[in-house]
Amino acid sequence: MNINNKHYRTVWMEKDIVKMINQSLLPHSFGIYEAKDYLDVANAIKTMIVRGAGAIGATGAYGLAQAALQYKGNGLNEFKQHIEKARNCLASTRPTAHDLFHGLAKVNEGIQDSKTIEEAKNNGIKAANEYADWGANNCKKIGEFGEPLIKDNSSILTHCNAGWLAFVDYGSALSPIYTANRKGKKVFVYVDETRPRCQGASLTAFELAEENIPHSIIADNAAGFYMKKGKIGLVITGADRIAANGDTANKIGTYEKAVLAKENNIPFYIAAPTSTIDIACRSGDDIPIEERSQDEVLYIQGYSDKGKLEKIRIAPRQSTAKNPAFDVTPAKYIQGIITEKGIVEATKEDIKGLFLNARNQRCY
Amino acid sequence: MNINNKHYRTVWMEKDIVKMINQSLLPHSFGIYEAKDYLDVANAIKTMIVRGAGAIGATGAYGLAQAALQYKGNGLNEFKQHIEKARNCLASTRPTAHDLFHGLAKVNEGIQDSKTIEEAKNNGIKAANEYADWGANNCKKIGEFGEPLIKDNSSILTHCNAGWLAFVDYGSALSPIYTANRKGKKVFVYVDETRPRCQGASLTAFELAEENIPHSIIADNAAGFYMKKGKIGLVITGADRIAANGDTANKIGTYEKAVLAKENNIPFYIAAPTSTIDIACRSGDDIPIEERSQDEVLYIQGYSDKGKLEKIRIAPRQSTAKNPAFDVTPAKYIQGIITEKGIVEATKEDIKGLFLNARNQRCY
Repeated sequence: MNINNKHYRTVWMEKDIVKMINQSLLPHSFGIYEAKDYLDVANAIKTMIVRGAGAIGATGAYGLAQAALQYKGNGLNEFKQHIEKARNCLASTRPTAHDLFHGLAKVNEGIQDSKTIEEAKNNGIKAANEYADWGANNCKKIGEFGEPLIKDNSSILTHCNAGWLAFVDYGSALSPIYTANRKGKKVFVYVDETRPRCQGASLTAFELAEENIPHSIIADNAAGFYMKKGKIGLVITGADRIAANGDTANKIGTYEKAVLAKENNIPFYIAAPTSTIDIACRSGDDIPIEERSQDEVLYIQGYSDKGKLEKIRIAPRQSTAKNPAFDVTPAKYIQGIITEKGIVEATKEDIKGLFLNARNQRCY
Repeated sequence: MNINNKHYRTVWMEKDIVKMINQSLLPHSFGIYEAKDYLDVANAIKTMIVRGAGAIGATGAYGLAQAALQYKGNGLNEFKQHIEKARNCLASTRPTAHDLFHGLAKVNEGIQDSKTIEEAKNNGIKAANEYADWGANNCKKIGEFGEPLIKDNSSILTHCNAGWLAFVDYGSALSPIYTANRKGKKVFVYVDETRPRCQGASLTAFELAEENIPHSIIADNAAGFYMKKGKIGLVITGADRIAANGDTANKIGTYEKAVLAKENNIPFYIAAPTSTIDIACRSGDDIPIEERSQDEVLYIQGYSDKGKLEKIRIAPRQSTAKNPAFDVTPAKYIQGIITEKGIVEATKEDIKGLFLNARNQRCY
């Protein structure tokens, strides 16, 4: 995706430094965060300098490759212990998004398959780059498969940010919108602000503005209002983890939008690469839900008119908050899942088919 | 309601000054706003120094009484023109809440029934005080009628603020909770923060903290999550206007909570005095919905850690927002309406019964 006429991926590696767009500065300023070692990478994921299922996956992958590259010793056993430590550290940063574990596994395979430390270092980097390329390419395909769902002159609701910032490039939920826009279709996007961290108001709005796609930010409370008024023809969100039965964990509030879409007969789609699917996870009940700091609800961060970053408290000093970061949308509310292999129904059979044989897919 | 061991109403009159709790300062500081004339009163309603259906109604009533009291001339016709002008000014402040028009009508009747200016001035004040007393008393009764709905050791979700700050005293949605608490029932309240203006996080949390009622603020997005988890046994919200068929306009997001409550088999109640019912309004389609400034979505107001009031921007400079202040919940989602005359079903027949004969009520 282009920023100021320069193409960027969300995360990449230069020499032994993992570089990423510092998403905590957006939409107010644009900067690159440089993670000097895998501990920096872990911290960047934990503090949400980088966020979004696919972007976390690629960042974790680069972090593990970096850990291999920066190993200074020469004992193969000690090296493998070092890799195991780095992998555990990176895996413990955030519990819900499945892509993180997928990305780490891919790089770990590359490393474990190697016979020498030197080979492992090369294979780690190669695997991380391949994982990032694969992720970007998958998102591009999601855009192509999802695009026909978008009618000309239509309005779409999206929740949180599942755009290119949430992946390596292109995005998942926003990718079909970008493809439709490039094909000349007129679309209008209702952007849920997505409290508590406002990824919709900050990141999705930023991406849409960069792409010159007409949009309005709305309070999360207003999505139902516009659905009932008939203003929204389609809902697309991303996913952090999809269980084998189609139940989908995504940003808190997604379940609310899915129920409201069903109530108003609006198709609700999940867009996600197959790396988001956790086939070992039988249903949504088995997906761990991250509870984040209550301060994300009690305070809001943004910029004052003087351009200063401020954190302000909206709640009384005596009050506490609860802050589940994700919820699970049962498969019955999901019209379909847009993947890089086509659109499938949110059923056990269709999801299994994605992993068996490309010809088994039921695309519609 | 008591603040620092002193009893306060939300709005009252001293000599010819209309005084009100400055709700725009809460929860961070407590102060009284003094409206020196009816223009000040109108401005206080418009800028939400005072907000909440019942509180707006009483403030409008006091504002019109103040306009009468401060009339300096002695021509009866000119006086009536002055009253008409003040009434129009106060009525044009906010379009949705029915109590405002009800409060203005009550004081206007008192004034119009008078034969001299002096008598009109006295009758205006008398009518405004009676309206405020009636409002406070109605809310107390709502608490008594609603209290049996609350089970011991239960959790309740509420949206926005329909506590005593939204009325003259006691509140509507929170009144049954206060009554249950005083009777020794253990209750836990999930407080929707209620973007964009965060009246839940600021005002409802403030009230509950003052009453020592256990509560947690949640992002509006998390209400469905806790409903699906079986953590919420009852939803009660207030109302800004109830149509003759039971359709109810209330703070944006109420419709979403009502749909989610139905989907999760949780009873959803509206608590409101009968002054909120607009019997001339046939259905929710006829209720005007206020669209407020987009800045309420693009910016958030609160206090920095240094105690300074700050307004911060969460959205990109290029992005716009839409900001409907209310939505309409169709009657089919409403289990019952808790009024000062008892609990009725949200049906045309039951609502009509409230205005016919006390014995016609079907209380359950």
